[in-house]
Amino acid sequence: MKIEHLIEQIHKKKSFLCIGLDTDLEKIPEHLLNEESPIFSFNKAIIDATHHLCVAYKPNIAFYEAYGSMGWDALRKTIEYLNEFYPELFTIADAKRGDIGNTSYRYAKAFFEDLDFDSITVAPYMGRDSVEPFLSFENKHTILLALTSNEGAFDFQTKQIGEKKLYEQVLETSISYKNSQNLMYVVGATKASHLIEIRKIIPDSFLLVPGVGAQGGSLEEVCKYGMNKNVGILVNSSRGIIYASTEQDFAIIAAQKATDLRDKMAKELRKN
Amino acid sequence: MKIEHLIEQIHKKKSFLCIGLDTDLEKIPEHLLNEESPIFSFNKAIIDATHHLCVAYKPNIAFYEAYGSMGWDALRKTIEYLNEFYPELFTIADAKRGDIGNTSYRYAKAFFEDLDFDSITVAPYMGRDSVEPFLSFENKHTILLALTSNEGAFDFQTKQIGEKKLYEQVLETSISYKNSQNLMYVVGATKASHLIEIRKIIPDSFLLVPGVGAQGGSLEEVCKYGMNKNVGILVNSSRGIIYASTEQDFAIIAAQKATDLRDKMAKELRKN
Repeated sequence: MKIEHLIEQIHKKKSFLCIGLDTDLEKIPEHLLNEESPIFSFNKAIIDATHHLCVAYKPNIAFYEAYGSMGWDALRKTIEYLNEFYPELFTIADAKRGDIGNTSYRYAKAFFEDLDFDSITVAPYMGRDSVEPFLSFENKHTILLALTSNEGAFDFQTKQIGEKKLYEQVLETSISYKNSQNLMYVVGATKASHLIEIRKIIPDSFLLVPGVGAQGGSLEEVCKYGMNKNVGILVNSSRGIIYASTEQDFAIIAAQKATDLRDKMAKELRKN
Repeated sequence: MKIEHLIEQIHKKKSFLCIGLDTDLEKIPEHLLNEESPIFSFNKAIIDATHHLCVAYKPNIAFYEAYGSMGWDALRKTIEYLNEFYPELFTIADAKRGDIGNTSYRYAKAFFEDLDFDSITVAPYMGRDSVEPFLSFENKHTILLALTSNEGAFDFQTKQIGEKKLYEQVLETSISYKNSQNLMYVVGATKASHLIEIRKIIPDSFLLVPGVGAQGGSLEEVCKYGMNKNVGILVNSSRGIIYASTEQDFAIIAAQKATDLRDKMAKELRKN
């Protein structure tokens, strides 16, 4: 997907919501467990109920991998369903991959070509030749981990390297990568105040922002410090939406939670 | 597997060789493509021909993921075959995973419980709560990326944080993680001279060393600077062994290449 189409969708839907499909057989409504593919049935119901309220879906691949080939089948069905019926939606494989060049290229082919996701999350630790294979795909986007939303982010990401913090170094160095125009970045909502410095380094890039809701991040602060002239942020919510109810009404309640977030986002967009 | 069993195997076989099963349908002998599961057939032939020459096998998960559920089935068949017929061999899922706590735990369950690998490679960028879920499994081992064998390692891993380099900080910080006795580390053979400093920080841990052969690392240097009283190193070779021939004789030639390495390793063990 071209980035212009994503921006267009945001303005049309008054929403920059990404819904995380972290689908866990132990948490989905019991009545779905009799379906042929319970994971896909759950995802389909969530997507059908919320597609007009969000601009992106983000399956976290760990949840699918945990079920082996059954999980992969459910992941494939989910992405195929999205690409067939809701091609206007941006899709993110939250895989946090990264390996030496020829191996990263295998991951890129798996997620960009075979599964046809619009984007994938990638870990920066192994540097340039682990990231560039992902960047070589046209109209596909690589979302590099910069400053994550978890406590462990303080172990290394915020450590000082000379004048800069490690995550700032990651941002700066990544700009020099070939086809860096295909980069986006993960920046956790729990560390919104860092967005001021981040926007000085990458004013134009899109940010994927987890951590609003369950993890305690503030939507208002993220918008205040993170938005740019093209909106430039996708805010993710997973558990707060998809597991808001575990009864028959789970999709309706998920849509209500997504509507609440969309309404708050529409308000922020009016300020922008 | 208990680490004592791995050490015992090394002494028994006079080898600390790990064979990387980076199985690629475009590189395996053509006659295998008619088999029901060409990837598994290839792996099985390689394993049967080389199991007495090595102490570990390391499938790189990217190569399996690239083939979707067919790839996962081949991976499952491979690990089940190893665990049934060669339970004395140490198995490594080269997955380079790492995510927020509850998600890392899903990956850990997938690779340690469902697939029953002895170990998995993990990326350190997200810090403590992304690594500790892996460490909580008894007799399972987490191989943390420290200093990788690729060129991109110089982007961040060797950058100076105060008195230390980032990868040294990763080693030091990881020692404080809960159950850190279950940690091993990836250190590339292409950077063998760094092993002197590394051994000062983690004298007793096992190291997984890629980059001997195709990437240009020296086995002698790795042994000189990296070995400890329990040997403490596993040296990986992938392409140099498994793709040494693409004809009918591929398994025999692979065994010859593995024998060459085993002989060199036996010599190093005699020095130790």
